[in-house]
Amino acid sequence: MNKKYNFYAGPAILPLEVIKKAQEELLDLNGIGLSILEISHRSKDFDNIINTAKEKIRYLLNIPDNYSILFLQGGASFQFAMIPMNLLKGGKADYINTGAWAKKAIKEAKFFGDVNIAGSSEDKNFNYIPENLTLTSDASYVHLTSNETIGGIQWSEFPDTGDVPLIADMSSEICSRRIDVSKFGLIYAGAQKNIGPAGVTLVIIKDDLVEKSPDNLTTMLKYKTHAEKKSMFNTPPCFAIYIIKLVMEWIEKRGGIKALEAINEEKAKILYDLIDESNLYTGTAEVKDRSRMNVTFRLSSEELENKFLEEAGREGFVGLKGHRSVGGCRASIYNAMPIEYVRKLADFMRKFEKDNR
Amino acid sequence: MNKKYNFYAGPAILPLEVIKKAQEELLDLNGIGLSILEISHRSKDFDNIINTAKEKIRYLLNIPDNYSILFLQGGASFQFAMIPMNLLKGGKADYINTGAWAKKAIKEAKFFGDVNIAGSSEDKNFNYIPENLTLTSDASYVHLTSNETIGGIQWSEFPDTGDVPLIADMSSEICSRRIDVSKFGLIYAGAQKNIGPAGVTLVIIKDDLVEKSPDNLTTMLKYKTHAEKKSMFNTPPCFAIYIIKLVMEWIEKRGGIKALEAINEEKAKILYDLIDESNLYTGTAEVKDRSRMNVTFRLSSEELENKFLEEAGREGFVGLKGHRSVGGCRASIYNAMPIEYVRKLADFMRKFEKDNR
Repeated sequence: MNKKYNFYAGPAILPLEVIKKAQEELLDLNGIGLSILEISHRSKDFDNIINTAKEKIRYLLNIPDNYSILFLQGGASFQFAMIPMNLLKGGKADYINTGAWAKKAIKEAKFFGDVNIAGSSEDKNFNYIPENLTLTSDASYVHLTSNETIGGIQWSEFPDTGDVPLIADMSSEICSRRIDVSKFGLIYAGAQKNIGPAGVTLVIIKDDLVEKSPDNLTTMLKYKTHAEKKSMFNTPPCFAIYIIKLVMEWIEKRGGIKALEAINEEKAKILYDLIDESNLYTGTAEVKDRSRMNVTFRLSSEELENKFLEEAGREGFVGLKGHRSVGGCRASIYNAMPIEYVRKLADFMRKFEKDNR
Repeated sequence: MNKKYNFYAGPAILPLEVIKKAQEELLDLNGIGLSILEISHRSKDFDNIINTAKEKIRYLLNIPDNYSILFLQGGASFQFAMIPMNLLKGGKADYINTGAWAKKAIKEAKFFGDVNIAGSSEDKNFNYIPENLTLTSDASYVHLTSNETIGGIQWSEFPDTGDVPLIADMSSEICSRRIDVSKFGLIYAGAQKNIGPAGVTLVIIKDDLVEKSPDNLTTMLKYKTHAEKKSMFNTPPCFAIYIIKLVMEWIEKRGGIKALEAINEEKAKILYDLIDESNLYTGTAEVKDRSRMNVTFRLSSEELENKFLEEAGREGFVGLKGHRSVGGCRASIYNAMPIEYVRKLADFMRKFEKDNR
């Protein structure tokens, strides 16, 4: 096997243990003589999987009882529409514009009501998290993107929105650090960065928001449908949910979210320290808002960046190219990224700097 | 391994060869050193997978060039809403009511326009396909469910709808027989019965219908978005698409759809012949409309049905219980069901009849 260090921004690295376990039981799930790919979603065996996945998520993220945990389809992009369809309904909502993902959410919300841009870092190409927000007191909700994969910025402290529900797209950081779920009305995350494969979206929604689904909304677009039917209104993406279950068991075994948070901080520090000490690499995000998930940096010239990416590729480091909209380089170091891989990358970066002085 | 014969209605049996191949390369796809579960959907490796899947589907189903092949999420249930959102838009559509699935489609369409029930078999608990349809000349489209899994009925010949686009939910029969795609405006199918795992929906749509997506529809709900972006507007369900590719390669190796159709006919004949000759089993569907995918039957009493299901379960035959809404028994014999398993079931049924005379 041709060894690779997977720094892709998403779909992204999964724990090797999880893939091995899935491989091991792909033909025969728990000795039942059938594959997870071909069992009924109404079977006891799948029931056990989806229930365990939910219980583990509730336990690990310390989710209060008055929140439902849903497994939906369509990715975060679909939530960009589903949220305003259920909760905006011609009203007004505050959105904070921190980059490409926030912008996509804003675009879709405008189909359904008034959008107030309560803060933006567009003036500096989204390299920071805006501080002085102009929140609307009668907004239906406040929406933010807790981590922006392209700019490589992340919220450290979340704004206090009082009685207005706070909604966060946590696709690129879910389960990477402790979060006080009770401060949010709704949290959503495409699974394919930190908790699973592409094809399932985790939604954590407070019960009073579930109740707001309008009656004239078609069945599959209502949060209420999925909350009432426990994500089983129709056939859910069974295999993707099964992998989430395995990932949650892996997180638990590693000591839970607190332990992962510490390792994630350490991983990020290795790369940011190197960048700060270097004369070749420059971080693109403001220091205070640096993402612990996506480390974005540039070299002194595009030519050198290309050389860097090429040599890195030859050494097995894949996915280091920055997003096409901003260029440069990016190391995505999600939950499943082992610290040893980050150290190997740092070693390579130091060597590359020495060789290209 | 505890050998099972998987007669579930869906998610349903997949070819053993396909699961084995997926297992074999789950840790290392084609020697690239990464899993299909963790590669970028923008990578060359995934590009190759999705393109091959589409090419094989186009070739096997003989799909004309003026149709797009889309991989969407949300199942057929989501298409029940997406179709009228894109194509009905306050107009009128003809729906043919052949059972639970057709009814669900009708329910959602009513959110978006007028629905004319052009035919129904509800008078006989959906045990036949209605013949004399009252089609509307100015309908936006005609919708039918080509195979109903619960009643066990299937369209043999499709109605001629002239210039009005014909739309079919083929979830439970896609790729099981030859179809003249050019007679349809749109065909859709949740993958989890005949072509893959749960979590991806195949949509085959004629280009002139793609153009009808209204501008005021949110991005992810427009067919146009997905057709223009070739199902890559956002991260698609990569693993499910990969399995579809493997299933298409398996179909090709078996001689294509024509060869499968012949085997499927033979499989169905084994069970229907047995039922017709039996004094214990009674088929529930009208003979002319019997499904080649879902063979529904009853025994002389509920007590005996329970005994039958219990003994069958002990012999490894799973998924034979009829849908909870109609009771009785059902053998789902989709593409991946080997004829040997059907023969084994027939042997068991004959023995059970003898033992319970």
